[in-house]
Amino acid sequence: MFIESPRYTERLGSVRLNHVQSVIALDSGLKNQLPPHSAMGVVKIDEETIKHYEDRMAIVIPVKDEKLKLFEGVVSGVPQDCLVIVVSNSQREKVDRFRMEGDALDQLCRFTLRQALIVHQKDPAIARAAMDADYNDLLDEDGLVRDGKSEAMIIGLLMAKAAGKEYVGFVDADNYFPGAVLEYVRNYAAGFSLAQSRYSMVRILWQYKPKISGILYLRKWGRISEVTNKYLNSLISTKTGFETEVVRTSNAGEHAMSMQLAEILPFASGYAGEPQELVSMFENFGGILPTKDIKVMEQGIDIFQIETRNPHLHEEKGNEHLNEMLLSSLSTIYHSPLCDEELKQAILAELIGQGILKKGEEPPPVYINAPLKKGKVLQLVEAIQSDFDKYHVLH
Amino acid sequence: MFIESPRYTERLGSVRLNHVQSVIALDSGLKNQLPPHSAMGVVKIDEETIKHYEDRMAIVIPVKDEKLKLFEGVVSGVPQDCLVIVVSNSQREKVDRFRMEGDALDQLCRFTLRQALIVHQKDPAIARAAMDADYNDLLDEDGLVRDGKSEAMIIGLLMAKAAGKEYVGFVDADNYFPGAVLEYVRNYAAGFSLAQSRYSMVRILWQYKPKISGILYLRKWGRISEVTNKYLNSLISTKTGFETEVVRTSNAGEHAMSMQLAEILPFASGYAGEPQELVSMFENFGGILPTKDIKVMEQGIDIFQIETRNPHLHEEKGNEHLNEMLLSSLSTIYHSPLCDEELKQAILAELIGQGILKKGEEPPPVYINAPLKKGKVLQLVEAIQSDFDKYHVLH
Repeated sequence: MFIESPRYTERLGSVRLNHVQSVIALDSGLKNQLPPHSAMGVVKIDEETIKHYEDRMAIVIPVKDEKLKLFEGVVSGVPQDCLVIVVSNSQREKVDRFRMEGDALDQLCRFTLRQALIVHQKDPAIARAAMDADYNDLLDEDGLVRDGKSEAMIIGLLMAKAAGKEYVGFVDADNYFPGAVLEYVRNYAAGFSLAQSRYSMVRILWQYKPKISGILYLRKWGRISEVTNKYLNSLISTKTGFETEVVRTSNAGEHAMSMQLAEILPFASGYAGEPQELVSMFENFGGILPTKDIKVMEQGIDIFQIETRNPHLHEEKGNEHLNEMLLSSLSTIYHSPLCDEELKQAILAELIGQGILKKGEEPPPVYINAPLKKGKVLQLVEAIQSDFDKYHVLH
Repeated sequence: MFIESPRYTERLGSVRLNHVQSVIALDSGLKNQLPPHSAMGVVKIDEETIKHYEDRMAIVIPVKDEKLKLFEGVVSGVPQDCLVIVVSNSQREKVDRFRMEGDALDQLCRFTLRQALIVHQKDPAIARAAMDADYNDLLDEDGLVRDGKSEAMIIGLLMAKAAGKEYVGFVDADNYFPGAVLEYVRNYAAGFSLAQSRYSMVRILWQYKPKISGILYLRKWGRISEVTNKYLNSLISTKTGFETEVVRTSNAGEHAMSMQLAEILPFASGYAGEPQELVSMFENFGGILPTKDIKVMEQGIDIFQIETRNPHLHEEKGNEHLNEMLLSSLSTIYHSPLCDEELKQAILAELIGQGILKKGEEPPPVYINAPLKKGKVLQLVEAIQSDFDKYHVLH
């Protein structure tokens, strides 16, 4: 593939946040016309490099009662060399949708001789292992793993670590275009190949998100992202003294990280997950607050934001969640120790102006799962490994 | 990629028409878990094989006043090793859209160091070359090349031959998903790699064609295709005595062929182009009517129909052309010497029932451009070659 070189890199302490890079073409052929790093502002990422990273990558697909045809399509778009890990929170009573997902995964894997893992978020064995490893953040009052996509992501991360993978990418199960899924994963690989540090993250920016209402209208920005991006950029600006528009992927569900970064990141619940990742990196390694992790400060963290060639056509889930999404997203900034009084007031004004908060109210703080390394992560991973046969779809 | 093996092959004389093969997964990785031809009914087409055919393939994109963003996206999805040939019939006055297309193509090619050709359908040099080579079918009363996609395809074929390409694939310029375009071309390559004969064709069947009307509804079949397929299958059945449903791609605009097959095929104008290709192959090599081309009869013709993983999301052009499309499509069958009286009556009943024809009317015969080899094709190709500099976008 061909991708723009990062035109500018915003530095906040040890965090290197690269401006958006667009994918120029999906394929770069076998012939070597272009040097790997071109002076022209475009980088060619060759097939071998992409496959190198795909082989070390797990793709985690969180799924909850999704249309089976969409789920199948998404799996069929994941490159063969990646390990597919499905974390399902689908219903098991009456119609056992979890079983249907397993069957569909099994069929696809049989025909393509690939491996996959599938686990249910409410599997008591996972909850027990988390408890034994003192990682209680993950658990609900009923002793099982909490609902939510962030918790599914954490299970996926643990399974990827148990399987020895070095990178983990997340892909939503509601995508209509297998070819877009293929591109996301290849973009992850491209980003990782450009990283200097072992702590790296790739966040996907959709070129367009088609809105379907009689006619096809290609929206460049989601309403929520636009607002969250604005305040995350303000957060950076108040620290550097220079206005910036670098953040364009604050709510990017499609993103990937190196396992080493994943282990030191806290994961907020609900819609706060993706923006909290950025806020936490700014807090812990932005050079403003004290850090405990000297090794990470030395290496730095590379964040890439890659704009796809494909538009993003996913299942429309209605608008009810938009307010909640904005509230959670801005709450991550509001409650950050980096957030000064002026920015707090601006966020309150935004939320009141949008009718989401009343005067005098504050955004409720988000629930945060501590970084994995805070628990006895190795013990947790070993417990999952000992149950591996159960989760494996292997041919 | 992984693709189903053809489960059954319908034989009509020398024409081997394979049943639909579905794409199972878009990527097959670098690791070699599966032998190239598996006994399991699934074939793995490895990356090297795909690139082998892409390198020998030209992708012709006919374009007429299409949205520039869609055109750019389509080009960015064509694999790098293919030669892109744009045949434009866009307006040149007031807003010179042809020039805008050229500029966009030039920019994309500059950044990816690739070659491309772009020509205007009404370029007098092309018309003059056709006239000099006694290939007057292509020309309109004004002495320029006729309007129409089939005529654009023929110009594309000639340019591909001039550039020394062995395969030519056609891709429409109105596709919203670059990733789908990438898949079409890879499917072409996969099909050619399965062919026994040097005379081969790959026709794309979209898995779904989303219909946008408030909600997203994934149609499996287009209305026109369904009807044309039915009567083309009847045409085969009346000759073999066995009912068949083998034809599923009678109106497949996305299709590709070996240059050797392209040279012996007639190309009907307008919407009749794609179904006429099948009808002509049945007429000339189906073993029922006498053939003049013993060499082709010996080798046979391989036709593959490949069902994509991606749905097909293209620009909605309205419904006005649907009647015309059905009329032209069924006309190719109606006027074939293979069509018996009973089938003719069935076609008339269909067209009258749909309100497209009145009682007593017949479908007008379609305009057919003779096969390229009927003209002095080498002279025509040489003339285009001598003008090559003019058409080249080369970096």
